[in-house]
Amino acid sequence: MSDQKLQIIPLGGLGEFGMNCLAIRYGDDIIVIDAGMMFPDAELMGVDVVIPDFTYLVENREKVRALILTHGHEDHIGGVAFFLRQLNVPVYGTALTLALVERRLEEHDLEEDPKLHEVKPGDEIEAGPFTVECVHVTHSITSSLALGIRTPLGLIVHTGDFKIDQTPMDDIPFDLHKFAEYGREGVLLLLSDSTNVDRAGFTESERAVRPRLEDLYRRAQGRLVISCFSSSVHRLQHILDLAKESGRKVAFLGRSMLSVSEISHNLGLLHIPDNILLRPQDIMQVPAEKVCVAISGTQGEPMSAMARVAVDNHKHLSLRPRDMVVLSARIIPGNEKPIYRMINHVARRGAEVVYGSMNPPVHVSGHASVEELKLILALVKPQYFMPVHGEYRQLVKHAKLASDVVGAHIDESFVIESGETLVIDKRGAKKGEPVTVGRVCIDSGSVDEVVEDMVIRDRRHLSEDGFVLPIIAINKHTGKSETLPEIVSRGFKSLEDASDLMKEARQVVARTLENSSAEERTDWGVMQEKIRTDLRRFINKQTSRRPLIMPVILEV
Amino acid sequence: MSDQKLQIIPLGGLGEFGMNCLAIRYGDDIIVIDAGMMFPDAELMGVDVVIPDFTYLVENREKVRALILTHGHEDHIGGVAFFLRQLNVPVYGTALTLALVERRLEEHDLEEDPKLHEVKPGDEIEAGPFTVECVHVTHSITSSLALGIRTPLGLIVHTGDFKIDQTPMDDIPFDLHKFAEYGREGVLLLLSDSTNVDRAGFTESERAVRPRLEDLYRRAQGRLVISCFSSSVHRLQHILDLAKESGRKVAFLGRSMLSVSEISHNLGLLHIPDNILLRPQDIMQVPAEKVCVAISGTQGEPMSAMARVAVDNHKHLSLRPRDMVVLSARIIPGNEKPIYRMINHVARRGAEVVYGSMNPPVHVSGHASVEELKLILALVKPQYFMPVHGEYRQLVKHAKLASDVVGAHIDESFVIESGETLVIDKRGAKKGEPVTVGRVCIDSGSVDEVVEDMVIRDRRHLSEDGFVLPIIAINKHTGKSETLPEIVSRGFKSLEDASDLMKEARQVVARTLENSSAEERTDWGVMQEKIRTDLRRFINKQTSRRPLIMPVILEV
Repeated sequence: MSDQKLQIIPLGGLGEFGMNCLAIRYGDDIIVIDAGMMFPDAELMGVDVVIPDFTYLVENREKVRALILTHGHEDHIGGVAFFLRQLNVPVYGTALTLALVERRLEEHDLEEDPKLHEVKPGDEIEAGPFTVECVHVTHSITSSLALGIRTPLGLIVHTGDFKIDQTPMDDIPFDLHKFAEYGREGVLLLLSDSTNVDRAGFTESERAVRPRLEDLYRRAQGRLVISCFSSSVHRLQHILDLAKESGRKVAFLGRSMLSVSEISHNLGLLHIPDNILLRPQDIMQVPAEKVCVAISGTQGEPMSAMARVAVDNHKHLSLRPRDMVVLSARIIPGNEKPIYRMINHVARRGAEVVYGSMNPPVHVSGHASVEELKLILALVKPQYFMPVHGEYRQLVKHAKLASDVVGAHIDESFVIESGETLVIDKRGAKKGEPVTVGRVCIDSGSVDEVVEDMVIRDRRHLSEDGFVLPIIAINKHTGKSETLPEIVSRGFKSLEDASDLMKEARQVVARTLENSSAEERTDWGVMQEKIRTDLRRFINKQTSRRPLIMPVILEV
Repeated sequence: MSDQKLQIIPLGGLGEFGMNCLAIRYGDDIIVIDAGMMFPDAELMGVDVVIPDFTYLVENREKVRALILTHGHEDHIGGVAFFLRQLNVPVYGTALTLALVERRLEEHDLEEDPKLHEVKPGDEIEAGPFTVECVHVTHSITSSLALGIRTPLGLIVHTGDFKIDQTPMDDIPFDLHKFAEYGREGVLLLLSDSTNVDRAGFTESERAVRPRLEDLYRRAQGRLVISCFSSSVHRLQHILDLAKESGRKVAFLGRSMLSVSEISHNLGLLHIPDNILLRPQDIMQVPAEKVCVAISGTQGEPMSAMARVAVDNHKHLSLRPRDMVVLSARIIPGNEKPIYRMINHVARRGAEVVYGSMNPPVHVSGHASVEELKLILALVKPQYFMPVHGEYRQLVKHAKLASDVVGAHIDESFVIESGETLVIDKRGAKKGEPVTVGRVCIDSGSVDEVVEDMVIRDRRHLSEDGFVLPIIAINKHTGKSETLPEIVSRGFKSLEDASDLMKEARQVVARTLENSSAEERTDWGVMQEKIRTDLRRFINKQTSRRPLIMPVILEV
């Protein structure tokens, strides 16, 4: 037994942004930490969601003992449904994390009931030779955990996603003492969040947002529309508290905003003052200066509530010149263009937009900056260090930081990317054999649509259902398509069978264009999404097949 | 004559980022200020450059008297060659601006010789009823002008792109006195740069960059590789000066870096210390700690010198672990992902990368922040104000700023987008009739390749040459394409004619994949560009046609 080796096997999230998933193996036992998703690059057209390739785990299915979730963000839980379809092992997480998982599971049709086990900070999870202690950490979503993982070879500390908020909204402090205790006890390996290793200093407390929001509540003359991540429960609390103080009602808009606010309210994590809620359909019935709207869609997602409000195409909210729109979230790199496009649309409505090109004025990060990362390194002073949760450049910087701070303590830091492994045995730690990893692309319904029948589309099976490329030439000036859209397809149906279908499909696309406003037609992101949604519905209905649909919009 | 109206007609750059072009018309006389290009969105696949639709000017060709260029940035001069092909009117600009225009003109085959006229600050350009005075302003490129345009109805002041650098590198101050004089005289209309209206305070002087760069010269142990815009002549001066002080030689890498440094040196704008230059082919022959490289490709452009160095695919420079790479430029919104991808590649080489996710540590902006914009408004105190050079959200903010600062002086501010017009006559100013505008997409060679035969490709003519879509499935894990690439084409050749050609084309794509490194194959941007370049060459050679080529890369 003492000859056994410990393997750290990142299946996603290291050397890339998103879809965090890490396996820890000792002999014939494996535990998995998180099973997240990532949003695809624009280059990966026709794909909504990307999840890790779980092949390594499926091939070792009889060894997998548990899936442990650190917190409820999509890049940590967004792949759980797909994971459970292949591996129905016990799942551990805090109440909020599990509630958010269950919300997603409802959209899926799992054959077996999932085995969800709620844990609290201080609880221990037994899984094969591992004992995993749950440790409270502060982060932008509540109920986040770090993990103290006891293995036959020593203690592994996994920070999860964290910042050290010394004045957290719920007054439950980051458990510094536990990290200190681990450090005294002796830690074999530290795995620590690298997201903000580029940022100097300390990340501000969520409480720092309040006075800035307060100022906007004072200034807003019409409706106050605040867009934030629906999972930012603390941010929603600010919005509700300030609405109460300023005599505004609050409406939640957007599917995720509605469900997450309800979930966190039911769990006692979000306190909703009496008589403050406004139904979405009543927003336009109440005097503008009495209305606050919390709305999802901070990243300019084409079908999100905020994006639809921006182009004046939302049934419950139409912006007016004295209204104020606040983006209370960071811009995720890669989303700049759609976000600025959305802001331009809002400005055309005549509403004031409060946003930050570089430092969003009403937002603080949920991830630790350099000084916090140093503090964790100094407290834990591990024998080995392996940065997690970052692109390659961030992992390298974090490893460098560790050698600066606790170089004397650390035997070695390892910059390991997804698919590479770290092996530790009695003789020490070194890089091990690579394992199979990859990205599995999922072509679901659009973000705010009920996902009726989500399918995993492995692109290797492209030849089965083929693909359909509608090609639309839009005149930039008129916003109109001057000829009937072209449609190119391949591997989908034999050409004779398909020609009538393709003729009709061209009409479907033409109708989608006609039924869009001039403003929508100038927004490629919105049009691609609308065309894809309508065409998918049509083709699926006519043929029961699901080809890959990639609208190509050319401006002429 | 006094009944004539003055029309301000933006053909590009207002309500969008890039391709600045503005016409001013009085009766039967038109002058045009700038003819720039924009870099296309990722959605606009297969397009390298976008220029304004000059239809309005072509339809009024006998009225166009002059093209006046404010400065030599591509978003102001990148469309000049296309402009002159249609309208060979006299072109005015400073020596540097014209030299940069001539460099581009060499790539084109103009039927008539261009009429280029060099101007200096203080010079007046006579064009029909207009007298245009050239005013020195400071900006990130030297030799930038604002324009004082005398018209029969009054004085128009156009700031060009500017910041107010009180300690400019060349000691030639921003001509504040001229702006003050105009203000005293009385200004009918001010057109002012809105780029940085989101930034509080004053933009730092270019001199602020020096101590930060100096620190890097001290720290760098191996080669110091600095990437900046080749047109940032002052930044190049810093690089040369500090290299001299620290005993390093300087090599310029990248086509634009080589030609712009030569041009600015020849004009006496860049001072190159004796015996400091190193030929690119000698970089690896000199001890690393004696080498500094100034390299183009700050925005992660797939075929740029910096991008090729990042994936270790440049014939003259191979990075080693002790080398330091510095990105001395801002991240243009939309380029985040390719830039971070490039940084990750550099980190994999083991080199240290100095960059800023939000505030690049060794860069200052070339555009005026809020306090500078206020200063210009206060000095000029125009009767009418029209913000230029910005997206809609920025124009709106700038108009708001004007009403805060000089609201008492201003009759009205106009937020006008490209294609809209402002009309001023004796009765006052109002929005006029729209004119034809649009974007013309140009499919040229790749950025660093000699552009042999650039063609204007109006997408309305797509049916003439058709399009070719190579579809490549790359395995994320192995970086390999597992099947022969698919090719879809339409409107290009009849299917029978093309089938042999397409078979060969599939082989061409397969070879491009084989000849790329594993690291390149995981970088979609690089692969799309390489496939497009090779396939274009093949198809052009075989058929003399130029279909639109859009590689679609699927990860499996």
